[in-house]
Amino acid sequence: VKQVWDSITRPTLVVDEGRVRRNIARMATKARASGVRFRPHFKTHQSAAIGAWFREEGVTAITASSLSMAAYFAADGWQDITVAFPVNWREIETINRLAAQVRLGLLVDSVETARFLVERVTSPADVWLDVDTGYHRTGVDWEDDEAGAGIAAALRGSLLTLRGVLTHAGHSYKEHTAEAVRALYDETVVRLSHVRGRLAAAGYDGLELSLGDTPCCSLVEDFSAVDEIRPGNFPYYDVMQAEIGSCGLDDIAAVVACPVVSTYPARNQVVIYGGGVHLSKEFITDRQGRKNFGWLALPTDSGWEVLLDRSYVTSLSQEHGVLQVDAADFDRLRVGDLVLVLPVHSCMSADLLKVGVLVPSGEGFEMMPGVISG
Amino acid sequence: VKQVWDSITRPTLVVDEGRVRRNIARMATKARASGVRFRPHFKTHQSAAIGAWFREEGVTAITASSLSMAAYFAADGWQDITVAFPVNWREIETINRLAAQVRLGLLVDSVETARFLVERVTSPADVWLDVDTGYHRTGVDWEDDEAGAGIAAALRGSLLTLRGVLTHAGHSYKEHTAEAVRALYDETVVRLSHVRGRLAAAGYDGLELSLGDTPCCSLVEDFSAVDEIRPGNFPYYDVMQAEIGSCGLDDIAAVVACPVVSTYPARNQVVIYGGGVHLSKEFITDRQGRKNFGWLALPTDSGWEVLLDRSYVTSLSQEHGVLQVDAADFDRLRVGDLVLVLPVHSCMSADLLKVGVLVPSGEGFEMMPGVISG
Repeated sequence: VKQVWDSITRPTLVVDEGRVRRNIARMATKARASGVRFRPHFKTHQSAAIGAWFREEGVTAITASSLSMAAYFAADGWQDITVAFPVNWREIETINRLAAQVRLGLLVDSVETARFLVERVTSPADVWLDVDTGYHRTGVDWEDDEAGAGIAAALRGSLLTLRGVLTHAGHSYKEHTAEAVRALYDETVVRLSHVRGRLAAAGYDGLELSLGDTPCCSLVEDFSAVDEIRPGNFPYYDVMQAEIGSCGLDDIAAVVACPVVSTYPARNQVVIYGGGVHLSKEFITDRQGRKNFGWLALPTDSGWEVLLDRSYVTSLSQEHGVLQVDAADFDRLRVGDLVLVLPVHSCMSADLLKVGVLVPSGEGFEMMPGVISG
Repeated sequence: VKQVWDSITRPTLVVDEGRVRRNIARMATKARASGVRFRPHFKTHQSAAIGAWFREEGVTAITASSLSMAAYFAADGWQDITVAFPVNWREIETINRLAAQVRLGLLVDSVETARFLVERVTSPADVWLDVDTGYHRTGVDWEDDEAGAGIAAALRGSLLTLRGVLTHAGHSYKEHTAEAVRALYDETVVRLSHVRGRLAAAGYDGLELSLGDTPCCSLVEDFSAVDEIRPGNFPYYDVMQAEIGSCGLDDIAAVVACPVVSTYPARNQVVIYGGGVHLSKEFITDRQGRKNFGWLALPTDSGWEVLLDRSYVTSLSQEHGVLQVDAADFDRLRVGDLVLVLPVHSCMSADLLKVGVLVPSGEGFEMMPGVISG
């Protein structure tokens, strides 16, 4: 690992292969034990190389957050892909290209989009009814007893098959205890089941239930009430998940290695090469009430050592990160050294950095290209 | 312009060429009138194509925020480049490569970095003493009367020439009136001049003064107290600058065009394809006290029309943006249409999108690659 640290000159995504494989195996095992389909969301790693580790765990169905991402993984051989994002009418050509190539799942939450698809789709595709179970981002209101049947009716007799009801309970990210997250999971199952029940009453039988945010999927053991889970962040985890309680510090598998460029003993601050364009501007208000853009670790010969949470990233500009460092650790951060930032939101940091290096092997890995034409 | 709008299928950076050229010309004219060097910071557009418009205004010296960016613009023929970031020891090879190729300016704020450079630099380079005039990010404290001379002494007799004292008064971003920004500019000039005076007293004569954040450079008319200005954001401006008062709404030259994917009349909300990976998670707390991730505009045949600020981006996840839309405008946003987001921080959004399209011409333009190897 020391050779990896020595080779880094600029802000670099470093991923601990052992931890990622452990995080994947743990989730796959839980899904198998519950008898549900494990359809991981690949938006966090966005990498064919890391996707291969899921194949080794028997995964054959995945989730993507954009048609571009679906196309990237389809090109890598994935044959069953749900795009967990409302259908973008302006990309109907990409939808048709993908639907001809793989088993494609689409999210629909309005009759107008259902009608648009019925008119424009040229190959069979699955439709998932996107349900709002309380997050209030997308989806039909779970209490709206007419909405689901209206959409189902619009799809009838077309190339589109209503496969099930789906939700993203993103409000789990606002919870801070395992009990609260588990209660939210139970509530979500009840609400999704209610929607399925209404559809069954309207004559639409055999529909599946799909859910899966990382907090719920990390903290719940028994998924037998649903048909598939779609967690995304868990291979890497991050500070946000640790604050929720979804993971421990030792589960965080991705860090951003940043060179120390200046130290300011008078204010116990250190400036690193590593800013908003590397880490993203995502922050948490931590348990000490501070605006916190990441925790810190130092490289070791076998991996990294997390510093006490008195040391953290206190602000970010485009390329600069300002660290507030506990006096006891201050002399351990010297100009020219590397410091490792545990990202607040690993999905965002990985997306910004676009390539990474694995430890302990030192192998680089690529992600889907950031710029996609056409 | 309508053809440009019709061609967009995914979140896309759209730049109004006329506005950018006007913003550049205005700043160049002010610099000329004050008799100071205009060394614009290219971190916002990061584009050789847009850099060419500065050349047309007579600009020959530029600022970059990383060695990678300096290398990109050096390859495009720029011959005088200051890297406005503390020297990163781990990139000494890149420094030496660039110093052999262009007139390179480096920022130093510690004796240890001065000594490191003296030992390792293989071509002549300029050094700017980075001074902290109140922002508390990098730089020697302007009140520390020993620091500057210590660094100057460490450089003596080396390939490095101390060229001047430099600051980034980034605390101007916290101001909300032109008067406050102008007062901050005056204070900054006094503090930088103090540091130069101390250096002159220690025998280091003829040093230049360099400053230049966009708020100060937009709101001050007479720069004759300094030798060069280095504003960066002003070609595009953004919501943050408009809130400070650095620009009007009509000066904002960059928007992110996003497809509308779903509408929710019951909560006056609209979801767009356009999230944190396109806009960045940067937000302002606006004058109404709301967490605001961007203002909105609608495409027109000649450009765009800004909506009243009762409509705005209220939250972002990875790919989703949630808009709160004024009831009067709600029916104007339909699924399949484009909505334009005026970004909170155009530097971050441009960095994320990496390519853009100009209006009215419809020409695409490239930025420096996001992933740089070696």
